[in-house]
Amino acid sequence: MSTVEELKLRVRELENELIKCKQKTDPETPAHVRTKIEEMSAEVVDSNPYSRLMALKRMGIVKSYEKIRSFTVAVVGVGGVGSVTAEMLTRCGIGKLLLFDYDKVELANMNRLFFQPHQAGLSKVEAAEHTLRCINPDVVFETHNYNITTMDNFTHFMDRISNGGLEEGKPVDLLLSCVDNFEARMAINTACNELGQVWMESGVSENAVSGHIQLINPGETACFACAPPLVVATNIDEKTLKKDGVCAASLPTTMGVVAGILVQNVLKYLLGFGTVSYYLGYNAMEDFFPSMTMKANAQCSDMHCRRQQEEHKVATEHPKQEVVKEEEEVVHEDNEWGIEVVDEVTEDELQAASGPKPDLPEGIIPIYTIPPEKSPEDMVEETEQSLEELMAQMKKINLLA
Amino acid sequence: MSTVEELKLRVRELENELIKCKQKTDPETPAHVRTKIEEMSAEVVDSNPYSRLMALKRMGIVKSYEKIRSFTVAVVGVGGVGSVTAEMLTRCGIGKLLLFDYDKVELANMNRLFFQPHQAGLSKVEAAEHTLRCINPDVVFETHNYNITTMDNFTHFMDRISNGGLEEGKPVDLLLSCVDNFEARMAINTACNELGQVWMESGVSENAVSGHIQLINPGETACFACAPPLVVATNIDEKTLKKDGVCAASLPTTMGVVAGILVQNVLKYLLGFGTVSYYLGYNAMEDFFPSMTMKANAQCSDMHCRRQQEEHKVATEHPKQEVVKEEEEVVHEDNEWGIEVVDEVTEDELQAASGPKPDLPEGIIPIYTIPPEKSPEDMVEETEQSLEELMAQMKKINLLA
Repeated sequence: MSTVEELKLRVRELENELIKCKQKTDPETPAHVRTKIEEMSAEVVDSNPYSRLMALKRMGIVKSYEKIRSFTVAVVGVGGVGSVTAEMLTRCGIGKLLLFDYDKVELANMNRLFFQPHQAGLSKVEAAEHTLRCINPDVVFETHNYNITTMDNFTHFMDRISNGGLEEGKPVDLLLSCVDNFEARMAINTACNELGQVWMESGVSENAVSGHIQLINPGETACFACAPPLVVATNIDEKTLKKDGVCAASLPTTMGVVAGILVQNVLKYLLGFGTVSYYLGYNAMEDFFPSMTMKANAQCSDMHCRRQQEEHKVATEHPKQEVVKEEEEVVHEDNEWGIEVVDEVTEDELQAASGPKPDLPEGIIPIYTIPPEKSPEDMVEETEQSLEELMAQMKKINLLA
Repeated sequence: MSTVEELKLRVRELENELIKCKQKTDPETPAHVRTKIEEMSAEVVDSNPYSRLMALKRMGIVKSYEKIRSFTVAVVGVGGVGSVTAEMLTRCGIGKLLLFDYDKVELANMNRLFFQPHQAGLSKVEAAEHTLRCINPDVVFETHNYNITTMDNFTHFMDRISNGGLEEGKPVDLLLSCVDNFEARMAINTACNELGQVWMESGVSENAVSGHIQLINPGETACFACAPPLVVATNIDEKTLKKDGVCAASLPTTMGVVAGILVQNVLKYLLGFGTVSYYLGYNAMEDFFPSMTMKANAQCSDMHCRRQQEEHKVATEHPKQEVVKEEEEVVHEDNEWGIEVVDEVTEDELQAASGPKPDLPEGIIPIYTIPPEKSPEDMVEETEQSLEELMAQMKKINLLA
């Protein structure tokens, strides 16, 4: 019954409606959409997305905020912590982001920030890239939809960490671990020890009420093979964590706080302001935030960690050689704020861990004990016996992201 | 040149494309979109947006997570802290949210989480409601696009706080102040003192590197007329804060952390777990998080505060009467974690403030001094002399959200 004219009108109506709809989601649609900005400006106008960041210079906090554009950060794990971490870095105007994840967005993820219901079914890296590009098209994105712990992917992962910088062939400036399992953490640890790559670890407990961040500079601070990862104790019933076949709890609050303190530490490290934290815990039940530093272990089972320690020693003993960047930062062991962390870990508790005996402040506990014989750099060898043993250990672990 | 068949095909194509596009933004579009859920379930399936929250029960953290649906929270100020606060509460499945703001989204806001460039020009409450409804259609939203400090709006604001609960006629359960100026904070303080409404305040400093949250229970803890709002000192050059005509700095990290600790405190308060914080500060430069409590001042200049103090006294002296809810919570003055807060505020500093002389821990400073004669409940009278005087005070204030 439709005439050609009626149909043509309908086509025009639909085209107009589609343009309006696309303007809401697609960064390429002209009106109301953020276009690329060649140079960061401090001009105070409503249309400048960088005015409030460049104001950090006038406020005396950061010397050169524009430097943010020269840095590349790799985010491994784009879940509850990783996605918010990537969003914060994108909004801060980071130069380049590499995103690694192999998971899909599910409605079950909607209790955390960032992903939205209409993205259910998409790969997390694909969905994240789309949203992040809309938010800030000045950032360069590189995404990898794979599991870094399989042999082939691990090789590719190592290659991208070494060569995926803003200028191809240069390494990334920092790697952030926002993964939810032990195996992925150990793969990152192995890669960073081998490459001498500075990285930061993050984690949130299975009961959703504690989390932490940790800076690892290979050769200087303890790696995951030097000492088990640490968590903030929450004094909850251990039995509730040990049940099989139940999902972990998570909260947007705890994950938002962990992402916030992680990216704050990244900004302080890259832009050189404030005190970079080596370990910062968050216990939501008590609003308790312990901090500490742990030196690398000379008897570490990871040969690359031991090599990095030798190199670090040479670099600090011969200061005309390049000194590792964060040596400039003040470690707040002598803290002026009067926060006192008391070592009350018993000898028995320390005996239970086969790694070094760190001076753990009250409320911080090792997450597992390291198997004495096996070397964790074997972790990425898929068929090694040690992997299965460590997989058994994994079940005891209550960290996720 | 088009035939009817060709045009019909084009119409179908456009209709399909439009549906796909709408699915990304419109909560009413069927496929891939989150539909309303009658009852919260703990079932562990990918399609259940509440599984990770209901798991808090199994983990022994929360007794009845479902109760979250019975609560109404008012968020005043939907900026860098308020928008993330509203998103976290929405994802947690709060019963009802009231949003108050009179600002528009600008590209200059893109350095904080939540709003996206395509929303530039929309009112913040309208843009926020659209996004939040997509994220969780189970939440009831009520938005008010006005400035609460004008006379008429203040009256309407008071009415909605008193009657805008999930069941019309019942008050909200909690009010959150996420505003960026002194006048709005004092209007909220006045309203909550008069209504006996429990509220939480939040703020971020102009230099973007410190923030705080504070719980105010009228009659129990110090209100804004009892003692000036407190901030975490950041030891930066005061001169950089005093320049006129420059915009404040802000960071998504600091605002994300403040929103996170704020909503965490809301969840602890409403669902009854952990220790509710009365004051929690965040100094990003040192990763320092001071906490404290301040009692209401018997000589407070706000008559409604003094009345609330009397009523609170009666309620606690005669326990058969309804005891104020958060009396059950443990205040961590004797804290088991070994965090020591030292009072090193000088007598001169205390003399400078005309309010009560609180025992301020090191690193916490009053944000301004209270004018001795004028009563802050006059704040909402538009033509009062005291308003202008306090407006002059406002210029000294370095809090924003």
